[in-house]
Amino acid sequence: MTQSWRSIAGGVTAPQGFQAAGITAGLKASGKPDLSLLLAPEGAVCAGTFTTSLVRAACVDLCSDRLAASGGVARAVLTNSGQANACTGDRGLIDSIRATQAVADRLGLSAEEVLICSTGVIGVPISMETLLQAIDPLAERLSSEGGPAAAQAILTTDLIDKQIALEADLGGQTVRIGGMAKGSGMIHPNMATMLGYLSCDAGVPAEVWQGMVSRAVQRSFNAITVDGDTSTNDTYLAFAAGAALDPADYVALEEGVTAVSQHLAKAIARDGEGATCLLEVQVEGAATEADALAIARTVCGSSLVKTAVHGRDPNWGRIVAAAGRAGVSFQPAAVALWLGEHQLMAAGQPLAFDRAAASAYMRDRAAGAYLSDDTVQIRLSVGDGPGSGLAWGCDLSDQYVRINADYTT
Amino acid sequence: MTQSWRSIAGGVTAPQGFQAAGITAGLKASGKPDLSLLLAPEGAVCAGTFTTSLVRAACVDLCSDRLAASGGVARAVLTNSGQANACTGDRGLIDSIRATQAVADRLGLSAEEVLICSTGVIGVPISMETLLQAIDPLAERLSSEGGPAAAQAILTTDLIDKQIALEADLGGQTVRIGGMAKGSGMIHPNMATMLGYLSCDAGVPAEVWQGMVSRAVQRSFNAITVDGDTSTNDTYLAFAAGAALDPADYVALEEGVTAVSQHLAKAIARDGEGATCLLEVQVEGAATEADALAIARTVCGSSLVKTAVHGRDPNWGRIVAAAGRAGVSFQPAAVALWLGEHQLMAAGQPLAFDRAAASAYMRDRAAGAYLSDDTVQIRLSVGDGPGSGLAWGCDLSDQYVRINADYTT
Repeated sequence: MTQSWRSIAGGVTAPQGFQAAGITAGLKASGKPDLSLLLAPEGAVCAGTFTTSLVRAACVDLCSDRLAASGGVARAVLTNSGQANACTGDRGLIDSIRATQAVADRLGLSAEEVLICSTGVIGVPISMETLLQAIDPLAERLSSEGGPAAAQAILTTDLIDKQIALEADLGGQTVRIGGMAKGSGMIHPNMATMLGYLSCDAGVPAEVWQGMVSRAVQRSFNAITVDGDTSTNDTYLAFAAGAALDPADYVALEEGVTAVSQHLAKAIARDGEGATCLLEVQVEGAATEADALAIARTVCGSSLVKTAVHGRDPNWGRIVAAAGRAGVSFQPAAVALWLGEHQLMAAGQPLAFDRAAASAYMRDRAAGAYLSDDTVQIRLSVGDGPGSGLAWGCDLSDQYVRINADYTT
Repeated sequence: MTQSWRSIAGGVTAPQGFQAAGITAGLKASGKPDLSLLLAPEGAVCAGTFTTSLVRAACVDLCSDRLAASGGVARAVLTNSGQANACTGDRGLIDSIRATQAVADRLGLSAEEVLICSTGVIGVPISMETLLQAIDPLAERLSSEGGPAAAQAILTTDLIDKQIALEADLGGQTVRIGGMAKGSGMIHPNMATMLGYLSCDAGVPAEVWQGMVSRAVQRSFNAITVDGDTSTNDTYLAFAAGAALDPADYVALEEGVTAVSQHLAKAIARDGEGATCLLEVQVEGAATEADALAIARTVCGSSLVKTAVHGRDPNWGRIVAAAGRAGVSFQPAAVALWLGEHQLMAAGQPLAFDRAAASAYMRDRAAGAYLSDDTVQIRLSVGDGPGSGLAWGCDLSDQYVRINADYTT
């Protein structure tokens, strides 16, 4: 990230003109906040990226269909937590349409401008009476201070909320980008979703915006893995509305969009069930960025690497073995490997290294979410190609197994 | 399998003319058997399948190069356990060549007819002095009763040995197929290998034999998954030598080869670290067999499905979500799902079912390796296509994490 982007207070409502709200509608048995609304200013464009799973929730179909039909225009997104509205048949789509119609009626929008995301238990319909009764009080709470309340209301089993806002001066124009997210891939069983939202108060044509957001997603949400289980509901929606930005500043804007997306994605990996650290894998020297990302993701997702990190065991053989099965071509004889500052391999063969110090390096990177030193860094060089990439994950602990084995029993 | 194949005593030496031996050479610190030799009769053809990992051990390169050069002819395979001979550079290949030359000299064969498999710690060279001194006593032990000793000597952290032998009368000719295997994918960290060996006393042309074995591997070893970590050393070698079989009986022979391969593959999944049951996933109604296998393997490999099975939790949402991310096209609205005899979904939507009974079904399928009732069966119908397939795995327990997190610390 260039120096121009600086951290500011607030989340999705930090950018000018955005309003949000979050309330307890009664959809969750726990009584925690479960309904949120994000409203973008008039003229907003919206880019969406969605789960690649063939089994998609009704709300995912609705969002992608509406954005395709409008050419990337939308004003608001409603999010209910408690029910994922996946595997709910025709009723699921009807419920999604009814919910967005109620929001549109209340806000004076057309239903086509309103989107909906759902997260929670698969196969259980949303209690529509409860939801519809809550639209009015929810809309009343809309405000430019509502970001934190909205960020709370989208959570399911997350331990912490996930928000960020950045600001930069681009061509004499102050631009802000805000974001919020929930989940950890499908590490939250049944409660199964990664949802992310981004807001930006610069004006960008819809197709330019979609390109920026799609590339940022490749380098953020698509670069995290917790257990490899893609959810039925994964959705990332990014709104932009404001004074038109000079195209000369698009590169700088994309850096900000990428930084916000990466912050949210890493926050999700950090909050993985049973995780005691963030795992960051950097791959360089690959033929392409896509190749580097494939290797980085495979290493991040390896159960053997994740358990070794949990045990703070500098077990380099597992790392290079995972790289070898990434489905990407590279020269095994060129591989070099670092764990933090400790080099473990060169030219495809192991080096003598201080095992106790390497283990201590990992032990020192523990928990303390959002601390910079909670990150175990693995760096893998696979040749002299121009492709590099980063992926993030977390360790695999016995706590993960207990949480997921005992989920409904 | 047709009725014609019956189980008989013995392993790889049950087929006529095959000899084997296994001894303690001193390559393992534990003092357990660590060197084995399998000798096929004159005229034997040999089919090999090898790891798809880009990072391959020296012995894998040697085996595949020699089989390619000879057109599928080999007589013997030496296996050392203790060191995987992967990531050992030029020295690794030189050591492999020296070991096979020593065996060839002792048995009066050419080195090109001798193969070698290694399993154990990655990055550590084989102690060649120890190995070479043991070739003579190993060869002295070669006998047609040596199968069980060989099956012991190929193990690393396996809890039990894995052997089988079948017999059938094909066209008036009695044909026997034997097999042995070790490992659990790369669930055995550092000790990282799946090795399998098959012997058959029928004569089959090399290219026909390779086709049979490759198809059998697709339906057996390539259909198991424990933690998704493909090893650097995975190898399956299948020898055939004997009276020429009538081509009319090739289909029956392939059934036997497949049955032996599936038995060994399932034995590996059963012996997965921390496993308390075998998981069998059957997919039907897919467009092709390859599609069905892809779905079955994805469900078998899902951490969320595996933890749910460990907790004996009939969490159908995780199963259908895993199927959805298999990268294969099917109609979500056509999905039906059974857990044992309990139907959980029809037409893509959940059914009411007796949760306690479904959970009890899974609780009753526990441990007791090699009992027929250690198998939790999931059946998934994804349409009305002709493709069906089976995959096997095991549950994911906190014991797995503890074993792998504490491996070298």
